[in-house]
Amino acid sequence: MADQKKRRRVGEKEPETLPFKSKLKPDSAILQIVKKLAEQEAAASTSTAKPLTLADLKLAQACREVSDLPLSSVQSRIEELVLSITHSIMSENGFSLTVPSRSAANQLYVPELDRIVLKDKTSIRPYANVSTVRKTAITTRIMQLIYQLCLKNIHVTKRDLFYTDVKLFQDQTQSDAVLDDVSCILGCTRSSLNVVAAEKGVVVGRLMFSDNGDMIDCTKMGMGGKAIPPNIDRVGDMSSDALFILLVEKDAAYMRLAEDRFYNRFPCIIVTAKGQPDVATRLFLRKMKMELKLPVLALVDSDPYGLKILSVYGCGSKNMSYDSSNLTTPDIKWLGIRPSDLDKYKIPEQCRLPMTEQDIKTGKDLLEEDFVKKNPGWVEELNLMVKSKQKAEIQALSSFGFQYLSEVYLPLKLQQQDWL
Amino acid sequence: MADQKKRRRVGEKEPETLPFKSKLKPDSAILQIVKKLAEQEAAASTSTAKPLTLADLKLAQACREVSDLPLSSVQSRIEELVLSITHSIMSENGFSLTVPSRSAANQLYVPELDRIVLKDKTSIRPYANVSTVRKTAITTRIMQLIYQLCLKNIHVTKRDLFYTDVKLFQDQTQSDAVLDDVSCILGCTRSSLNVVAAEKGVVVGRLMFSDNGDMIDCTKMGMGGKAIPPNIDRVGDMSSDALFILLVEKDAAYMRLAEDRFYNRFPCIIVTAKGQPDVATRLFLRKMKMELKLPVLALVDSDPYGLKILSVYGCGSKNMSYDSSNLTTPDIKWLGIRPSDLDKYKIPEQCRLPMTEQDIKTGKDLLEEDFVKKNPGWVEELNLMVKSKQKAEIQALSSFGFQYLSEVYLPLKLQQQDWL
Repeated sequence: MADQKKRRRVGEKEPETLPFKSKLKPDSAILQIVKKLAEQEAAASTSTAKPLTLADLKLAQACREVSDLPLSSVQSRIEELVLSITHSIMSENGFSLTVPSRSAANQLYVPELDRIVLKDKTSIRPYANVSTVRKTAITTRIMQLIYQLCLKNIHVTKRDLFYTDVKLFQDQTQSDAVLDDVSCILGCTRSSLNVVAAEKGVVVGRLMFSDNGDMIDCTKMGMGGKAIPPNIDRVGDMSSDALFILLVEKDAAYMRLAEDRFYNRFPCIIVTAKGQPDVATRLFLRKMKMELKLPVLALVDSDPYGLKILSVYGCGSKNMSYDSSNLTTPDIKWLGIRPSDLDKYKIPEQCRLPMTEQDIKTGKDLLEEDFVKKNPGWVEELNLMVKSKQKAEIQALSSFGFQYLSEVYLPLKLQQQDWL
Repeated sequence: MADQKKRRRVGEKEPETLPFKSKLKPDSAILQIVKKLAEQEAAASTSTAKPLTLADLKLAQACREVSDLPLSSVQSRIEELVLSITHSIMSENGFSLTVPSRSAANQLYVPELDRIVLKDKTSIRPYANVSTVRKTAITTRIMQLIYQLCLKNIHVTKRDLFYTDVKLFQDQTQSDAVLDDVSCILGCTRSSLNVVAAEKGVVVGRLMFSDNGDMIDCTKMGMGGKAIPPNIDRVGDMSSDALFILLVEKDAAYMRLAEDRFYNRFPCIIVTAKGQPDVATRLFLRKMKMELKLPVLALVDSDPYGLKILSVYGCGSKNMSYDSSNLTTPDIKWLGIRPSDLDKYKIPEQCRLPMTEQDIKTGKDLLEEDFVKKNPGWVEELNLMVKSKQKAEIQALSSFGFQYLSEVYLPLKLQQQDWL
């Protein structure tokens, strides 16, 4: 096999020089630059000993946040709630639940924290009311099921939860929505409830961690990588000699980098959720960043959804804003593909795609978001995208050869410290 | 943590007995039964020294099959083809390609092989014809790109391939379809072309294998499991002390079994493609079955799609019938959830779902398929499904408790040798 790999026919010309390849300095020089970034990151995370909290901003009363709780505390909180309900019923005040509102009007972007949080509006969910009786019953039933999970200390999916009482829940969207309500009511994260979503993410590169007691070495995971565990509470003992974390939007680019073992040339950890960020990957990324104190560089498509995905990792989603302190990874740097890269790297016209009306609208909506506005560089790029009406996927770089991404584009980006 | 796990309040009643749990024999007795199955499998695979081929059935001329080829052979075949085209052009016969037809009319189910194969019909794709000029150009371009991959010995995705010439391909469905044509023209598998699809599958349990040179121990992959590598040619050195392979349709059930470490109680390998079987998982399953000589038991939803998925693993899909000899895993046993299980295990009415018109149609269509007909047990089950008009997901078992699947249902199925 070995000599077949290299076999070239007589007279076959060498592959033409890749555009911009001549600009690349030796790897050692690029490594120096990346090392400096990693040192800055480590210094920053030790100097600001404690990250800002809602309390520091005197927002602890005005906003609502949940936290990771051990199972025993979740159990106690359910017991306390049930006790208070019993008292209420016995003193003839009936049975009702106070549920934090998760509507759009109750969301707040806090620039100092650079994430979306939930404000303190709540609504009353009385049992003795024809419009809320069903939802109150569902909420109580979900709490009962969570209580069982606490006793058994096992993890289940939302789908499992739905199936324990199809007659009551009728439709999985109903049990899913109430599950988020229960997180808010009890003041704990959804992970604390031991309900997990299907895993999607994979990780490969210079990372060691334990998954449910097994030590995993992510440099020894071949091309497939290690599936990110659905339950973050069983992940621990993270260690790494990486200089940065490379967050990749899609799995085609991830695969290219894994096969080329990019992490050996530039020590890094490569992670992807294969599209939309799922809860498990978001928790895993945050845990890596926090424990290893590494900078995070993001490689996403040059379209509004790429930036949207970046913002969900960084600032959180509106749907789960109550848990943004646990789900978000601060200070993610936008490495590429940025709208300005399209001309800078001379991406051929035929590999760019025209933006649809919907794309342009999403782009303009993003320009109104506080978490975009606070970063002038991002605003500039997004303006360029909306103006040029062109988008491009990471894979568009393949037009210069399949390995252009790993051999030229990324090294040059690192060398030029070209992140925002 | 340890004592929190077990903590039970005074007066709290023990969980009620699970239905049918009393029928379970001790694990040692069930293990004996499973061991017998594994021995039968091993005996069967040594006695039939060579599996039947198209040539044995005198169908080698009437049917077309591709095979795994080393990169150097793929390269040679492309060179030979280009040479013959050059000759044709120079002798003023013009340029055309002979392309095997992959239409439904050109498919054949061969009962002796228990898989779908491609018949020998071909069509001519001339360059000098307005209706085929574009497709001929695309086919030639794809072959040129494959040739480059051979020289570099790297793997790319279909998406990468598309992006190397968006102007020509216009739409990814066009380059994807032609890629299958090129496999047929060159007579090699798509894996041989080094074009892979996104990986979806995961594996956990009693399996060791090498992925791109790294040894992987799937008992030490925590709950997340090991992502199945996209490129089967870099997978090797499989070894196992398992007694069977448990093929699971969906990841919720997979997660339950991984967390409960079901493979430690009953030595097995657990694998899932998280829904529709992808090429990587199909190749991986076949490789496990062939190298380890283990029986494969399937756990799918009790609906027409569950059986359809089972049949794709077992007999292949029409779309890739040209490669069915590499993609299919013979003799997969249908363990559950079977339509007869719904009453047998007293699945509550509210956890069963009514079949839609489309479901019933798909069920009836399956009854017409030869690969269903050849298994009287399957026909009976499918008839019951279509008659009762009820379906159920694996997760419906959660109505008896989240761990019912791993603690009662599967052990009892094994004990009763209740597979078809």
